[in-house]
Amino acid sequence: MADSKDLNNNANTSSKSLGEQTSERIVELIINNDWQIGDKLPNEYELADMLSVGRSTIREAIKALVSRNVLEIRRGAGTFISQKSGVADDPLGLTFVKDKFKLSLDLLEVRFMIEPSIASIAAVKATDEEIERMSFLCDEIEKLIMKNEPYLDLDVEFHTAIAKSSKNQVIGNLIPIINRSIMMSIDVTNQKLRTETIETHREVLNAIKAHNSNDAHDAMLLHLVYNRRNIRNIIEKQKNE
Amino acid sequence: MADSKDLNNNANTSSKSLGEQTSERIVELIINNDWQIGDKLPNEYELADMLSVGRSTIREAIKALVSRNVLEIRRGAGTFISQKSGVADDPLGLTFVKDKFKLSLDLLEVRFMIEPSIASIAAVKATDEEIERMSFLCDEIEKLIMKNEPYLDLDVEFHTAIAKSSKNQVIGNLIPIINRSIMMSIDVTNQKLRTETIETHREVLNAIKAHNSNDAHDAMLLHLVYNRRNIRNIIEKQKNE
Repeated sequence: MADSKDLNNNANTSSKSLGEQTSERIVELIINNDWQIGDKLPNEYELADMLSVGRSTIREAIKALVSRNVLEIRRGAGTFISQKSGVADDPLGLTFVKDKFKLSLDLLEVRFMIEPSIASIAAVKATDEEIERMSFLCDEIEKLIMKNEPYLDLDVEFHTAIAKSSKNQVIGNLIPIINRSIMMSIDVTNQKLRTETIETHREVLNAIKAHNSNDAHDAMLLHLVYNRRNIRNIIEKQKNE
Repeated sequence: MADSKDLNNNANTSSKSLGEQTSERIVELIINNDWQIGDKLPNEYELADMLSVGRSTIREAIKALVSRNVLEIRRGAGTFISQKSGVADDPLGLTFVKDKFKLSLDLLEVRFMIEPSIASIAAVKATDEEIERMSFLCDEIEKLIMKNEPYLDLDVEFHTAIAKSSKNQVIGNLIPIINRSIMMSIDVTNQKLRTETIETHREVLNAIKAHNSNDAHDAMLLHLVYNRRNIRNIIEKQKNE
């Protein structure tokens, strides 16, 4: 009996508040007017006029869209389309997963499923400009490692650049979420440098440069194998502390 | 020059408003007290007291957590931990993708990367209870199809049940998002019934029942192949309309 109830819990669109409805209408405005990241929204008065609702409703709707990372408010300047393109800060609700060690291995398992395939698609689809960017990131990461400085943001950016060059928009949004989540779920700040990791980064890059799909696939797989071993070691250490 | 700026746009934690900080502290309360889905939150007065902020700040923080699907307000009853476990309604910001046909094929490409592997893990890890649930869903879907009634919610639930039985928490949250997004991005309400799709559902189920990983993998792959053909046909038709 509980089953039939479960099936319908996505159908309560009629119960939306005026604020929520107004949020959705603002999203429609953004899409229909083709407003881009960084564009400024009309002000409260204008929006209230355009959508025939009160200013307090507009304020409520804007707040909700800010917390969804669709809009951002710059004090004294106005409301703008957010750089975060509506991708939530913790889109998969991972904050609520208790066992962070298991979580990081689960995340890595997802990377194993996605990233080798993505690397082989990237080898076919990456443009010269995208490859140049990957190459720049690969160099920068190595420099930071040599100076013993944190490089994890760049690491996420390198993998994101590969993901985006696959031209699959879902993957382009998903990979940074997954890779950043791994760093948030375990403390990797003091990890020992693994030369294998750097070398396989470069192997992935070279295979994409050469437009060799199979090599890109295999290099990424190898990279993930080293990554998983590394993360397992970190977890072992942290569990024993 | 632009590059070094790009790298740091995740570091602006200090600029968080009191409302945002309070949201985060409420999330901490939920985690530390191990409050579960459906549990009732302390009321505004108690929360204001616990966190030493004003009631209007608590209200703002609660509103933000409602829009993040962490909390839900039931009128007259109070504030509760949401069934949606903090998974955003559109976590990947797909509302903003313009080409919905390409989006549905991109989403399907991700399913190809994930779901066959997941089916083979499910064949190893699914419990008897989970298999019973999958079996129930598979039967219900067939009944609905026979009656020519919409079954897509159940379809998402079937695939979610398989994903959750893999015990990978990320996959369990990700699969329903991806599968539901496909339905939102193309109009599949009038799709012709494909017997192949129903048959491969049952093949996936039987392989998981038999704990046969390879068969589960292959049946899911076949299921996705039929799905992609079906969706391509729908897209062709809708493009020509």
